[in-house]
Amino acid sequence: MSDPLEYFKRQAVIIDGVMRRDLDTVADPDLGRVLAEAIFSGGKRIRPLLHLLAAAAVRGCAVEDLVPEHSACAIAFEYLHVASLVHDDIIDASDTRRGRPAVWRAHSPAVAILAGDHLHARAMTLAGTAGGVECLRVIAAATQVMVESEFLQMRVAGMVAGGEEEYLAILAGKTAALIAAACETGVIVAGGNGEQRRALAEYGSCLGLAFQMRDDLLDYLGDPEKTGKAVGNDLAEAKMTMPIIHALAHSDDKARQWLSDLLGASRSERQRQFAAVRELLAGLGSFVDTSARAEALIDKALAAISFLAGHPAAAILEGLAMYVIRRDR
Amino acid sequence: MSDPLEYFKRQAVIIDGVMRRDLDTVADPDLGRVLAEAIFSGGKRIRPLLHLLAAAAVRGCAVEDLVPEHSACAIAFEYLHVASLVHDDIIDASDTRRGRPAVWRAHSPAVAILAGDHLHARAMTLAGTAGGVECLRVIAAATQVMVESEFLQMRVAGMVAGGEEEYLAILAGKTAALIAAACETGVIVAGGNGEQRRALAEYGSCLGLAFQMRDDLLDYLGDPEKTGKAVGNDLAEAKMTMPIIHALAHSDDKARQWLSDLLGASRSERQRQFAAVRELLAGLGSFVDTSARAEALIDKALAAISFLAGHPAAAILEGLAMYVIRRDR
Repeated sequence: MSDPLEYFKRQAVIIDGVMRRDLDTVADPDLGRVLAEAIFSGGKRIRPLLHLLAAAAVRGCAVEDLVPEHSACAIAFEYLHVASLVHDDIIDASDTRRGRPAVWRAHSPAVAILAGDHLHARAMTLAGTAGGVECLRVIAAATQVMVESEFLQMRVAGMVAGGEEEYLAILAGKTAALIAAACETGVIVAGGNGEQRRALAEYGSCLGLAFQMRDDLLDYLGDPEKTGKAVGNDLAEAKMTMPIIHALAHSDDKARQWLSDLLGASRSERQRQFAAVRELLAGLGSFVDTSARAEALIDKALAAISFLAGHPAAAILEGLAMYVIRRDR
Repeated sequence: MSDPLEYFKRQAVIIDGVMRRDLDTVADPDLGRVLAEAIFSGGKRIRPLLHLLAAAAVRGCAVEDLVPEHSACAIAFEYLHVASLVHDDIIDASDTRRGRPAVWRAHSPAVAILAGDHLHARAMTLAGTAGGVECLRVIAAATQVMVESEFLQMRVAGMVAGGEEEYLAILAGKTAALIAAACETGVIVAGGNGEQRRALAEYGSCLGLAFQMRDDLLDYLGDPEKTGKAVGNDLAEAKMTMPIIHALAHSDDKARQWLSDLLGASRSERQRQFAAVRELLAGLGSFVDTSARAEALIDKALAAISFLAGHPAAAILEGLAMYVIRRDR
C-alpha cells in the first residue's frame, strides 16, 4: 500500500463518528464534556482500526462491509487506551498530553479518576455486549496485564539494574497486551477459529513491541523537524529503554559505571550529556541492535499473518507492520 | 428472623473465602497484597449476600444450595464497592477507611488508582462470564450511574441550595444503584423473569435509600456507645443530608438564614453549634420526617417482594429490611 497514514486518517474519521454517537449514552453534561475532550484531543485510533482490520481479514471483506457490532467492540479499545492515559497522567504527574493540559490538570484528579472509571466500564460493556463473553475475557485479561505491568514498573523504578527481561515484560503489559487483544477480539467477533486468534494476537503483540522500540530509537536518533518532539526525553527521565539496556550489558566496566552514575544523577546533568551518551550507544552498536530487534519482531508479525495473504485487509496489516519500523515521525 | 447480623456474619465468612480464592488469579505479589488489604480490612458483604438471597428467593432454595456461578457473580459487587471506596478516598482526600490508613495513604495514589482499576475490570469480567451479558449490562449501567452521581455531587457541592431532588439523585447513584443491581442480577443468574427483576431491583433501591437515611439520622441522634462513631460528622462537613434539607425547606426566614450561614462557616463553628442545630431540627420535625421517609421506603421494599412470601430466603430479605430502619448502630 502507498501510504498507510492516509488510509488510517480516513478510517479514524469514521471511528470518531462511532465514538461521538456512543457518547450520547452519557447523561451527565460535565462527564460528557470531559470524555469528549479526553478522546478527541488527538490519537490515531490504531487499536480500533487493528480490531476492524483483523475482523475484515478473517472474514475476507473490507472494513466498510463489517456489521456495526465490530465498530462497537472496536471503540472499546480506544476507550481503554484513553482511560489508561487519563489515569497514567495522574500517576506520573504528567502536566500535558498531546500538547494540552492533562485531564487531571485541566479539571481535577477527581474528575480524571471518574472519567477513566467510566471509560473502563463502558469499554468492558461494549466488549461484552457487542463482542460476547469470550471478547470480554480477552479484554479483561489484557487490562489485568496492564495493571500488573504498572506494578512491576513501580517495583523496578530507579533500579538501574532493571534489565532486558523486565523491560520486555513492562512493554508487553503496557503497550503490546491491549494491541494484541484488539487484534484477537477482531477475530473472535468475526467468528474466526483458535488458530486465527493466536495468529492475530501474535501479530498485534509483535507490532506493539516493535512500535515501542522504534519509539525508543527515535528518542535518540529522531529528527525533531519530523517527529515534532525534541530528542533526549527518555534519557532525561532516566528511562530504561532498549538502547540503554543494551549499552549497560555490552560496555566495559568504566563506561558502564559512567552510564550508571549518570542515570542516578540530576536531570539537567543527563540533558548536558545527551550527545556523549548517544555517541557511546552508537559505538556499542546499541541502536543497530534495537533496530534489528524491531525488524525481527516485524518479521514475526508478518509470518504470523502470512496465512491471510491475498486479502485486501491483510495487505493493510502488512503495510502497517512495514510502516512501524520505517517511520521517522 | 431473630438476628440478621448473626446470619450475615456467617455468610460473610463464606463470601470472603470465595474472594480469597479468586484473588489467586492475581499474578503480581504487590497488587495481590494491596487488594487483600483493601478487601479484607472490614465490610459486611451486604451486596454479595443480597445478590445470593435474591437468587435463592427466586429459585426457592437456600443460599447454600446455589451453584458456584452465583458466588462468582456475587463477589463482583463487593469488588465494585471496594473499588469505589478506594477511588473515593483519593477523590475526597480521606486519610482513613475502617479505622486504618486509606489505600492511597498507606501506599500511594498511583497504587490506589491501579488497584481500583483492577477491581473494576475483574468485577465486570466476573459479572459477564459468570452472569452473562445481561448481568454485565445491569452492572455497567449501575457503574455509570455511580460515576454520574459523583459529577452531580461535585456540581452541587457547596451549594446550600442543593435540595431534596439532588440529594435523592446523588443517593440513588452513590448507594442505591449498586445495591439494586446486586439484587436484580441475582434474579437474572437464577433465570427469573422481567417482573421478578424489576421487583428485586425496586427492593434493593429502596433498601439502599432507607439505609442511607437511617445513617443520616444516626449521625445526629445515634448513641456513640453503640454506633462506635461520634455524632455530628455530617454537620461538621456541611454535608446536605435529609434532616438538614428538610429543615431548610421548613424553617422560618430567620432560622433558615442562620442555618445557611452556618453551613458556609468554619468547620469548628459548625462543631460548636451541633447541639443547637440538633434542637432546631428536632423542633422542625426534620428527624421525624426523615424517619418516616425511611419507613415508607422499607414499606415499598417489602411490598416489592411480597410475591416471594413464604420462601426462606425471602424471609431473610424481609428481616433485613426491617433491620435497616431499626438499627441503632
